[in-house]
Amino acid sequence: MVTVSLRDVMDAAARIEGIAHRTPVIRSRTLDALTGARVVLKAENLQRIGAFKFRGAYNAISLLSPAQLARGIVTYSSGNHAQAVALAARELGSSAVIVMPEDTPVSKMDAVRGYGAEVITYDRYTGNREEIGLALAAERGLALIPPYDHPHVIAGQGTATLELLDEAGELDALVVPVGGGGLIAGSATAAKGVQPGIRVIGVEPEAGDDTKRSLEAGERIRIPVPRTIADGQAAPIPGELTFSINKHLVDDVILVTDDHLRDALKFAVDRLKLVLEPSGASGLAALLSGRLTPPTRPDATPPRIGVILSGGNIGAARLAQLLT
Amino acid sequence: MVTVSLRDVMDAAARIEGIAHRTPVIRSRTLDALTGARVVLKAENLQRIGAFKFRGAYNAISLLSPAQLARGIVTYSSGNHAQAVALAARELGSSAVIVMPEDTPVSKMDAVRGYGAEVITYDRYTGNREEIGLALAAERGLALIPPYDHPHVIAGQGTATLELLDEAGELDALVVPVGGGGLIAGSATAAKGVQPGIRVIGVEPEAGDDTKRSLEAGERIRIPVPRTIADGQAAPIPGELTFSINKHLVDDVILVTDDHLRDALKFAVDRLKLVLEPSGASGLAALLSGRLTPPTRPDATPPRIGVILSGGNIGAARLAQLLT
Repeated sequence: MVTVSLRDVMDAAARIEGIAHRTPVIRSRTLDALTGARVVLKAENLQRIGAFKFRGAYNAISLLSPAQLARGIVTYSSGNHAQAVALAARELGSSAVIVMPEDTPVSKMDAVRGYGAEVITYDRYTGNREEIGLALAAERGLALIPPYDHPHVIAGQGTATLELLDEAGELDALVVPVGGGGLIAGSATAAKGVQPGIRVIGVEPEAGDDTKRSLEAGERIRIPVPRTIADGQAAPIPGELTFSINKHLVDDVILVTDDHLRDALKFAVDRLKLVLEPSGASGLAALLSGRLTPPTRPDATPPRIGVILSGGNIGAARLAQLLT
Repeated sequence: MVTVSLRDVMDAAARIEGIAHRTPVIRSRTLDALTGARVVLKAENLQRIGAFKFRGAYNAISLLSPAQLARGIVTYSSGNHAQAVALAARELGSSAVIVMPEDTPVSKMDAVRGYGAEVITYDRYTGNREEIGLALAAERGLALIPPYDHPHVIAGQGTATLELLDEAGELDALVVPVGGGGLIAGSATAAKGVQPGIRVIGVEPEAGDDTKRSLEAGERIRIPVPRTIADGQAAPIPGELTFSINKHLVDDVILVTDDHLRDALKFAVDRLKLVLEPSGASGLAALLSGRLTPPTRPDATPPRIGVILSGGNIGAARLAQLLT
């Protein structure tokens, strides 16, 4: 059975060192005062390509053989994983083909092309991106690096948490956005490997609660494609591998509304001076909305809570729209 | 004659350690590609109270005697120095009176009151803030900590540059926003003390070019109160002490327009994922607009340029307005 270990995450950390940014850990006394906790924020919006996704993509691609790198990579994504694969492939001297819905904003296609990748579009209502990706992999001999359901991608995503724990010390809880589940699977592997007593809490948009439902049911549940401003968390079903990890390691999943996400974006601008995308702000939203109750400590000192701010790719026009 | 030395800045760094944030140094490969330089950005928007001003205020107040701290502090400012003094006074167990124009936005008065300071308002068309501050100091026995024209304030502001040079190594040029001149006076003292060959370049809004004119004239020139979105750089005349330092240490001053500042704010959101206020983005604007030509290096490698991103107190509504 495929799984991911703390050792895998530590090996990934060694591979990305000096290539991915070691992103800053941000404190806010206002946030501490509002929550009654001691909160440390891992600013993955300041990661290369503006999100944690570069960690997993780079780790996975760096583990390919020279022959695979020579033939190239394929993936499907209209979001941050697309840019992450395009950039990581270029950094490693390979090439990438990105399968994107034909209605993806031109700016996102251009960003990917800017890293030298080829874009292939499909009709999201009639096509199936996994099938197109698999067909391209077979026809052209490309290595498929999916957005989350891959052990090397998951291990790479866990490196943000290793850095956070290294800098912040002991935490009572770690709060992580959940989309397909790759970030939280890697984060939980790292966190519980280093600090077995830590609680790992996922956050999903209310409309996209597939992981919460699946954890409650004990099996993967498919929901209708979620309508939420958190486009990075719009997966309709958890990944197979990510769910097999998360059902053992994730302690709870908190749901937040789009209004909570908007409030968190605004708080990030006003107080943290950081630009977040809605998905990237979901951990912050869980705290600020009061939906997440910080655990109490036996000694009654403020609980120590880590939050992964997972990304900031929103664009000035969209940010302005969500702030007003 | 009063002056400020590298030793003063180093002593200030020791005083603020563990109290002010050691703010992150941010890199952007997009910015490097656009400018042909290797740019390191010191993110003082992530400093406490959202701007570098906390450094100088804390250093100055920490140097007061126990008797002075017991009597309290007074200053005049409608901007970041007001919050900086209010917070630093509270941290040091003192109290603060802040003189603000009566048309200061309520949110700014509330921020200052939130740190426990008393606000005294005046009519900016008929009153003189320096006189009011001096009168309060005399009547109540308060210590006056002005926004920039004070050696301990200047020394504190220089600590951001010490941190930047410590982390980034040798730089060819340092680019610093200029308002009253306290930040650049401290920065230049630190930079030329540590790396005598470094060029120190100021940036002013075109409408607020009092320091550029003054450096050209060799004496302090007063201009009409500037109309610019960069409210932190709207000083009509350089400070006496700051000018006496800057005329020896500042190599050049670049002017940027409000449109350049808007473009830089947008770049910061889109690419850096950082929220800046217009003054805080002026160094970035100088680079992005092409007004600042990076120096060439004898070995033809990319010049290394440090930029102080001095603050991020803009507020979500105003940011949204400037982005659209």
